[in-house]
Amino acid sequence: MPHNDVKQLALELVQRVPIMTLGTVGEDGSPEIKAMMQARSDGLQRFWFCSNTSARRTTVMQRDGRACVYAYEFAMDADPVVCRGVMLSGTVELSWDDDLRRSLWQDFMTMYYPNGPLDPDFVVVQFTAERGNYYEGLQNTDFVV
Amino acid sequence: MPHNDVKQLALELVQRVPIMTLGTVGEDGSPEIKAMMQARSDGLQRFWFCSNTSARRTTVMQRDGRACVYAYEFAMDADPVVCRGVMLSGTVELSWDDDLRRSLWQDFMTMYYPNGPLDPDFVVVQFTAERGNYYEGLQNTDFVV
Repeated sequence: MPHNDVKQLALELVQRVPIMTLGTVGEDGSPEIKAMMQARSDGLQRFWFCSNTSARRTTVMQRDGRACVYAYEFAMDADPVVCRGVMLSGTVELSWDDDLRRSLWQDFMTMYYPNGPLDPDFVVVQFTAERGNYYEGLQNTDFVV
Repeated sequence: MPHNDVKQLALELVQRVPIMTLGTVGEDGSPEIKAMMQARSDGLQRFWFCSNTSARRTTVMQRDGRACVYAYEFAMDADPVVCRGVMLSGTVELSWDDDLRRSLWQDFMTMYYPNGPLDPDFVVVQFTAERGNYYEGLQNTDFVV
């Protein structure tokens, strides 16, 4: 499939699936996964997630910024079976920038950060993609973001 | 929360969620994720998935068997919000054992392995967990599997 078509399908998939899994590498080099809700995105290139400064994962990401995000749709009972996914590989950075945190704030987040958008425990995880892989059915395509 | 209660909640979650994400480590040490449907499981300790010998991921797993599996349930529109997940960390091994492949075979798999259960492209990914982490709401608990 042409490169641009695949990127368009990948973009539509990440826009339909608000919850992604974020992959990072633990202290001993082993993989770790956590589901994160997209707080904002910019095409396939950049995704922002909200997290806790106190979370163990924050320390993991500060030591090793290599990361991937992944979104998928499976429907094994559909005919034909639906089975598509996109993995974007790149790096994560953490930000406590006040303007960024204010711009991503939503009311329900008080549950997690009782002191509001500038709560020191509220940290933004910014993922930047470098390359991607999209699959659907039996087709599997690498692309540059 | 007591250790055994957490393991029970983790077990119920992986039994409700047939599709897990599998995390591995790529050639350059960066994390990779793919969604996989559980073909069989044994408690929290062992999970079997069906894959393709020809898949790039198979080479990745043969070189570095460190892996994790992850299952989650999110319902951000529920009240209260539902947000729970379990990550199991351990190792993967690949198997082309004929009895194992026959026992996991299902008819729809002909789409992926045209030559049936003994198709050389049909490989079983066997994940063995060593430790886990379960979270629900704001609580986060590590456990030994």
